[in-house]
Amino acid sequence: MTDKDTEFMTYALSLAERGKLWTSPNPMVGAVITLNNKIIGEGFHEKYGMEHAEVNALKGLGDNLEGATLYVTLEPCSIHGKTPPCTDAILSSRIRRVVIAMKDPNPQINGAGIKILEDKGIKVDVGLLEEKAGRLNEKYAKYASTSVPWVTLKAAQTLDGRIADMNGDSKWITGESSRRTVHSLRATHDALLVGAGTVIKDNPTLDVRHVEGKNPVRVIIDEDLAADLNSKVYQVKTDAPTILFTSAKNSREKIDILSEKGVKVITYENSDGLDISWMLRKLGSLGISSLLVEGGSKIFSSFLSSDSVDRYIFFVNPSLMGNGLDTFKSDGFKVSKRLQLKEQSIELVGEDFMIQGVPVRGD
Amino acid sequence: MTDKDTEFMTYALSLAERGKLWTSPNPMVGAVITLNNKIIGEGFHEKYGMEHAEVNALKGLGDNLEGATLYVTLEPCSIHGKTPPCTDAILSSRIRRVVIAMKDPNPQINGAGIKILEDKGIKVDVGLLEEKAGRLNEKYAKYASTSVPWVTLKAAQTLDGRIADMNGDSKWITGESSRRTVHSLRATHDALLVGAGTVIKDNPTLDVRHVEGKNPVRVIIDEDLAADLNSKVYQVKTDAPTILFTSAKNSREKIDILSEKGVKVITYENSDGLDISWMLRKLGSLGISSLLVEGGSKIFSSFLSSDSVDRYIFFVNPSLMGNGLDTFKSDGFKVSKRLQLKEQSIELVGEDFMIQGVPVRGD
Repeated sequence: MTDKDTEFMTYALSLAERGKLWTSPNPMVGAVITLNNKIIGEGFHEKYGMEHAEVNALKGLGDNLEGATLYVTLEPCSIHGKTPPCTDAILSSRIRRVVIAMKDPNPQINGAGIKILEDKGIKVDVGLLEEKAGRLNEKYAKYASTSVPWVTLKAAQTLDGRIADMNGDSKWITGESSRRTVHSLRATHDALLVGAGTVIKDNPTLDVRHVEGKNPVRVIIDEDLAADLNSKVYQVKTDAPTILFTSAKNSREKIDILSEKGVKVITYENSDGLDISWMLRKLGSLGISSLLVEGGSKIFSSFLSSDSVDRYIFFVNPSLMGNGLDTFKSDGFKVSKRLQLKEQSIELVGEDFMIQGVPVRGD
Repeated sequence: MTDKDTEFMTYALSLAERGKLWTSPNPMVGAVITLNNKIIGEGFHEKYGMEHAEVNALKGLGDNLEGATLYVTLEPCSIHGKTPPCTDAILSSRIRRVVIAMKDPNPQINGAGIKILEDKGIKVDVGLLEEKAGRLNEKYAKYASTSVPWVTLKAAQTLDGRIADMNGDSKWITGESSRRTVHSLRATHDALLVGAGTVIKDNPTLDVRHVEGKNPVRVIIDEDLAADLNSKVYQVKTDAPTILFTSAKNSREKIDILSEKGVKVITYENSDGLDISWMLRKLGSLGISSLLVEGGSKIFSSFLSSDSVDRYIFFVNPSLMGNGLDTFKSDGFKVSKRLQLKEQSIELVGEDFMIQGVPVRGD
């Protein structure tokens, strides 16, 4: 690999990211075609159901690209999905070298695309900027390989770990910039989830108001149907449905009222409460590839305890509440067994700190 | 002011800082003397009781400095302390221009030094890099003007605001780099304080083991004399005494045992518990100009509630405990009245984040 290879793949990754709002549950993919170290074609997967990155990059370049190199951020697909296999398009173009950032984790592909190219004598290099590419499509990678949605838990808290004061008031712990960033996060997840407590206290619409992007599916957990049936999440229509998880013990009548409003009501299969893993599999089966868990404390604690989170994101306001509603109030871990956040990063967002990382349990 | 002025004052501030371990309760001061924009003399206040920065900078330069400029980070003193007034030395040198970063907050000086120089026709410029100079001597400034020690509260916690797990175990939430940094903090405070809970749980020596510096006075709050009288803070001698604040209701016998060990026992004047403000005034009267509050939760909460902290420093390990001993468990503030940390900064210390700021209450 040369510096030029890295430069082109870096650019391909930046192209890929431009698809972030509309490709899900497909991956974001970018592609660059070069001849004599000059870019002659580029493209990215713009929207679910539309052409893949490679095809967009090849457009108008004809079928005589023998001296050209294709840089693509994900292994070209070898299967007929909504569009024909990208490997066919590459073979037709007569490109002789393909540089790939990472294998496609989708078990239907996972090396098969590479094999098709290599079998035809194409030189294939895999693994350039693999880590960056993996991070970019972490949601896709999990869902494609497990059919369970990627879970991001996002909390807005004080430095002493409180998401609300003693009266339950949380408006506003974090600043406007953080709240706008949360809307961007919503737009890059297929669904977002809150508990009944949040619906009752804040009566949120749970849409993507402040930024461009599609509205995610709204998922509510309300075991006893404690929230008002006229709450905004049930009442205000967006372009995405609302799914409610609730106990089968609730009155049929209330459930029917919600169903008539268009809410998809799913009752627990388990009589002693919600099994988070079951719920996630259920959401996965409905085509939801990523879920943003937004609160409150009880929901956060269940997700922490059940080890169901793939990425934690904290918006931390540099302030102290002294007491109030804890971000987490689970059974608690021992110091040595506590949940560590790895690959952590910190950014300033307005006056707040955005701290995120991937959980690893102590042993 | 010119760029050169700023350059020389920046250098003088860096000289000042070299005295940080040994000048207290005096301020850190640095001085630079230039001629034709070249440094011909420099010095800093190295140790309490020793020569001041200006005198060190003037050493060997004679008494014909008419064309020279003196840059000094704090107003030259006009009073006889342990050494003669610096204004005398400046006048003898015949320097005609003095640039000062900040006025001396000590009410005995506070402009008097500047006046003496100006009355003799010296051109005095005040306020260059004043904010940096103020930050450098924040401890001195408070103590010099109020006789109450500067209070730094330092906590080592998880991202969810726990300083220990459910069993009270805190070893080790933060990493080795953070713990070394804490020792540096100890070395820049005259005294450090812990509650009985910390003495019982951790039996710390509370010395400055891992870094250069003098050992601070150890201050213990133990209302009921719950901690073992043979605890290390009472038993292990350093070059600084241990002071115990306890209720006057305790047995005279126990108090006598501690006094015989060399512990300075101070009983509460107030029968319904410790008044933090009173304690701070008391410590101030004993010559303690700065105090580092190290824990535990109960102590932290009292200091938070009584609004007695001048700077908060949190070592935050990017991990989650889910439950455990809260850093603070006070009566709590409303969201709008919560304690904001201003002039906040964040640094990476090993795998931890060091977040600090100056408290401002919401209104």
